[in-house]
Amino acid sequence: MNFLNEVVEFMKDLQDNICNHLEELDGHSTFMQDLWEREQGGGGRTRVINDGLLIEKGGVNFSHVHGELPSFLKDKYPAGEKFDATGVSIVLHPQNPFVPIIHMNVRYFQLDTGEYWFGGGIDVSPAYPNIEDTKAIHEHLKKVCDNSNETFYPTYKAWCDTYFTIVHRQEMRGVGGIFFDHIHAENTFLNREQLLGFIKDVGNAFNPIYAFLVKNNRDKPYFESNKNWQYIRRGRYAEFNLVYDRGTHFGLQTNGRVESILMSLPPMASWVYNFIPEPDSEEAHTLPFFQPQDWV
Amino acid sequence: MNFLNEVVEFMKDLQDNICNHLEELDGHSTFMQDLWEREQGGGGRTRVINDGLLIEKGGVNFSHVHGELPSFLKDKYPAGEKFDATGVSIVLHPQNPFVPIIHMNVRYFQLDTGEYWFGGGIDVSPAYPNIEDTKAIHEHLKKVCDNSNETFYPTYKAWCDTYFTIVHRQEMRGVGGIFFDHIHAENTFLNREQLLGFIKDVGNAFNPIYAFLVKNNRDKPYFESNKNWQYIRRGRYAEFNLVYDRGTHFGLQTNGRVESILMSLPPMASWVYNFIPEPDSEEAHTLPFFQPQDWV
Repeated sequence: MNFLNEVVEFMKDLQDNICNHLEELDGHSTFMQDLWEREQGGGGRTRVINDGLLIEKGGVNFSHVHGELPSFLKDKYPAGEKFDATGVSIVLHPQNPFVPIIHMNVRYFQLDTGEYWFGGGIDVSPAYPNIEDTKAIHEHLKKVCDNSNETFYPTYKAWCDTYFTIVHRQEMRGVGGIFFDHIHAENTFLNREQLLGFIKDVGNAFNPIYAFLVKNNRDKPYFESNKNWQYIRRGRYAEFNLVYDRGTHFGLQTNGRVESILMSLPPMASWVYNFIPEPDSEEAHTLPFFQPQDWV
Repeated sequence: MNFLNEVVEFMKDLQDNICNHLEELDGHSTFMQDLWEREQGGGGRTRVINDGLLIEKGGVNFSHVHGELPSFLKDKYPAGEKFDATGVSIVLHPQNPFVPIIHMNVRYFQLDTGEYWFGGGIDVSPAYPNIEDTKAIHEHLKKVCDNSNETFYPTYKAWCDTYFTIVHRQEMRGVGGIFFDHIHAENTFLNREQLLGFIKDVGNAFNPIYAFLVKNNRDKPYFESNKNWQYIRRGRYAEFNLVYDRGTHFGLQTNGRVESILMSLPPMASWVYNFIPEPDSEEAHTLPFFQPQDWV
């Protein structure tokens, strides 16, 4: 099996494992699947879950697309280059406002000239501050990173903090996690096979991390005011994804399947003019809590 | 009174007139006002109305900002240029899904070298097709345009159709109206005073157009399914404004007041994966109805 096939098979298995795990966790809803093909080559398996006991809306998408580089990328590479891109991308919007939104992505890109890179990450956007959860997530991600290279966690944690900033509001989307892009042998000191090992570790970290967050928070009672705050934070999530997210823009610019790309958008979100939480409320403590800090 | 002052005074009066009219129409809620100042010069009066009988959320904003050109515009003009920009911008999200979202903007920009331009428009984003309303709006706007120049309506109507396209979905935001930008004596055959006359006509057309739409639709009974469709269309409205809208991007890039710029975002919106209306339902007829066509 060549390297590309190995990556693609891993991505498909990862999607299967995560969907199975999430259906068990949810206990009510199951995933529906849409298979799609891309005119210029390749396609994907979009899987969506709705109206669950745990998950209000979620997507776990696999895709493997290939063909000629889209024109807006041809400046960077010789024209006519053939590429392959494959990955799994997840966003889950939970029912309970005390369960965070979670996002995970692992991806691989290669050109037929031999150039390649990996990218991905896991990050968490709660609506409420939670020190125990945040520490545990970051500790888990640090272990995953350290297993490959001890420079990864501090680098990719900082990258995540920078990346998931809602610049126009000078606000963080959440408590971060790890984010990395365009990593390859020349900028990591790991070879391609070792990097695939790292990517597998990141992908496989999703289930235990989400299970932990769910277990801690899914049964917390909540009120209308908590749900309203969740809607406002989801509005910010939509703002980030539509204004800044690279994956979203790349997808929309390459004629990707719109409904698969935008499955990340919330089931229900609100924008309230100049909403200022009650002083000293949990809501008021949320944004300061999101300021980048050392969690490990 | 110099020309700039005349424009600024018109803009302020327009804001006052429209707010008074909307409070009367609403019959319950009133506007709250936030005065703000821009560090680099100028400021504005942001007026917002919420939870009305008619209006679920709306903003009627005036601003007049000035200072040195922001750096991303300095490529286009000699560095250090001083500018003034003033305008009124409105977005109203109604309670009743049969009342369209309406957007109006009139704006004036000048440099101390003497260059200037006007921009603006009125456009309507219903959630449901309505031939009578759409014809009446376009006829009204045609009259407003014809009063200044008979080339305006066909040109600015087509510009509006092009501009308010949600490109990645190949979907129109609504039934259009008129849109124009960077118009001045050299590209309109009108002088600056005459163009201000046109701008005044556009601004003053807002009250009768909205009153007409409200009268026709505010008392229509609606069900949860209609409200859910309105939430989905509002999601598209947010998509357009965050991904494509020039005014939004200009505001965010020039360190504008974020809450004033984003007052256009809906009070509550939803994204449902791959939502496909029932065949032959009113919802299913909406997008085909939005396809650009001659309404006059």
